[in-house]
Amino acid sequence: MTRITLLTDFGTADGYVAAMKGAIATIAPNVTIDDAGHDVPRGDVTAASHALARYWDRYPPGTVHVVVVDPGVGGARRAIAARVSDRLFVAPDNGVLSRVLESAGADAVVSLDDPAYHAAAVAPTFHGRDIFAPVAAHLAHGVPLGVLGPEVRDPTIIPEPRPRREHGRVVGAVVHSDRFGNLITNIPADHVPAGATVRVAGTKVGPVRRTYADVEPGEVLALIGSTGRLEISVRDGDAGARLEAAPGTEVVVGTD
Amino acid sequence: MTRITLLTDFGTADGYVAAMKGAIATIAPNVTIDDAGHDVPRGDVTAASHALARYWDRYPPGTVHVVVVDPGVGGARRAIAARVSDRLFVAPDNGVLSRVLESAGADAVVSLDDPAYHAAAVAPTFHGRDIFAPVAAHLAHGVPLGVLGPEVRDPTIIPEPRPRREHGRVVGAVVHSDRFGNLITNIPADHVPAGATVRVAGTKVGPVRRTYADVEPGEVLALIGSTGRLEISVRDGDAGARLEAAPGTEVVVGTD
Amino acid sequence: MTRITLLTDFGTADGYVAAMKGAIATIAPNVTIDDAGHDVPRGDVTAASHALARYWDRYPPGTVHVVVVDPGVGGARRAIAARVSDRLFVAPDNGVLSRVLESAGADAVVSLDDPAYHAAAVAPTFHGRDIFAPVAAHLAHGVPLGVLGPEVRDPTIIPEPRPRREHGRVVGAVVHSDRFGNLITNIPADHVPAGATVRVAGTKVGPVRRTYADVEPGEVLALIGSTGRLEISVRDGDAGARLEAAPGTEVVVGTD
Repeated sequence: MTRITLLTDFGTADGYVAAMKGAIATIAPNVTIDDAGHDVPRGDVTAASHALARYWDRYPPGTVHVVVVDPGVGGARRAIAARVSDRLFVAPDNGVLSRVLESAGADAVVSLDDPAYHAAAVAPTFHGRDIFAPVAAHLAHGVPLGVLGPEVRDPTIIPEPRPRREHGRVVGAVVHSDRFGNLITNIPADHVPAGATVRVAGTKVGPVRRTYADVEPGEVLALIGSTGRLEISVRDGDAGARLEAAPGTEVVVGTD
Repeated sequence: MTRITLLTDFGTADGYVAAMKGAIATIAPNVTIDDAGHDVPRGDVTAASHALARYWDRYPPGTVHVVVVDPGVGGARRAIAARVSDRLFVAPDNGVLSRVLESAGADAVVSLDDPAYHAAAVAPTFHGRDIFAPVAAHLAHGVPLGVLGPEVRDPTIIPEPRPRREHGRVVGAVVHSDRFGNLITNIPADHVPAGATVRVAGTKVGPVRRTYADVEPGEVLALIGSTGRLEISVRDGDAGARLEAAPGTEVVVGTD
Repeated sequence: MTRITLLTDFGTADGYVAAMKGAIATIAPNVTIDDAGHDVPRGDVTAASHALARYWDRYPPGTVHVVVVDPGVGGARRAIAARVSDRLFVAPDNGVLSRVLESAGADAVVSLDDPAYHAAAVAPTFHGRDIFAPVAAHLAHGVPLGVLGPEVRDPTIIPEPRPRREHGRVVGAVVHSDRFGNLITNIPADHVPAGATVRVAGTKVGPVRRTYADVEPGEVLALIGSTGRLEISVRDGDAGARLEAAPGTEVVVGTD
């Protein structure tokens, strides 16, 4: 049974998400629709790209992932579909697929230009319902990517800053914070040697731990998070608030 | 595969929605349940009626739409089911189906009087679980509407104020605001001529645009929204807060 | 069609829940996944146990209920699965199953020790994705409980205080408050005689009513709630705020 996942910033009070589900169900009644989430901060393309990075490859090949965080809806930005590692993606071309495209590279990206796969009438303010949902339903039904529109060779990628090595230390940054206040960095596990010490904006947060339970409640800690990157947390608390840290804050991995 | 959609004001922290899903799954294990949303403002029947209007006819014929925003649960209000344009509706008779019944008219409305289609024991405070969910499951299984109870000829409708024409202008009102602060009016697209100018509570918001991207971030604009009505928005902002406007605020469409 | 339900405190902004769904879909593509809810207050094991109590037995036999409210993830607490009244449960052994185990007793509880039923690599901070979700998928596929790990004879139960009888009165307490501010007590319906009068922290809230509509909006009332316990509410309002009551507040049922 093919699954379509939906990630949006629509909330669920107003019926916008349900309009997308109805559009899908009309075209592909036997498809399963999974809510990935609808509480992405409004218009926050980077947050959506990090959320998507947490689940896209946990789903089986053939899954269609729809992401609608689209502050430029109806404007000049393209609408695209992509195939990456046998999963399919449908989204505005605004960088929301950056983490997927950077980590795995796309086999194909197309611009959703053929109106045959859209709603009969497309509202300029609601491509989620009138373009992205119908296209996802057609893909789930086996329509090949190539018929949806012309190839795109330059999908928008919001580059993530890379950590650099400097005097035997690794200098990176916070790139995302989740709703618990966990600070996710751009530093991969293999840049964090055993016994390393972590500093956030100059404040020492101690050695790298295995899990939250390794410190007392309320204590700051560094650990390798579930996506394989260095994260800074407060056990049962909010590291972003405690350390006054946010995306962009410097994080240094050293030996002292 | 028949779908049942659920719209409530229950939130999802407490397990109330899951109790409804369990009641459905027990009677109709093969039915697909779609969350339409559970964050309708508490007891806000009008907000729920506008949310429902956004999706009910996007779903295919045969879909069963359940709405439980029911501040009078257990009191004198009736519980009803309706068939409108081949979709089925299950809800308290408190006006929550107003927009559906006004726009399309019902083929049939019945009062849910036959306890054979309810839970064996009905809690007076939780008809969502004990009446609406089981009735929806039976309808999804093909039980005909007419056996659920006697016909209702006067379902409760909360009438929406109609815009009026006055000295060559159209005078309407905000009737709903969504979680983004978009202000939805009662003025349909065909009342908005090309080149029209819009005023909200006396403040000029300029010509009617096609989409948000037609103005700069933070700028107020008027456009025809995705349900075919005049809406007032702020690009990437909150028009309700900016204009101090809310349901009831006057909106005038003129030529100057 | 077997159903798996998910109750967590993850929220839906960050993609953690979707990672669990993907892990399930990979192992058991034809299983239906129902969101029970993801807005349990962070780390609030007691709140989760009350939410679960509202729905677990409303689902049909064979359902797999997953609960991940797990402040001790990766630490010493066990991960368990249980069979109770033909439903299956997968959760950390931190008391989140207390209400289920107290009310119905378990036929079997096992510790999830066999890594064959976990993800190939288990992140110490995300057992929801790497242990609980895969185990739930295997159970939904018919894997017997007993192969998952050794029997547990002493699952963690957070005992609920019992009401006591004293001078012809019943003295109990608030044990939970829901998002509407309804106060749920530990006093079952059969401890509340007809004509009884209820006091909360010494304040008389009047006789026991049938439903909210029996009083005026804004008025405090006592009633037997949908789980068969005495509850204190304010019609269209918040009883917790009004009465300054919370879990632990004394509730007395008397005859005057």
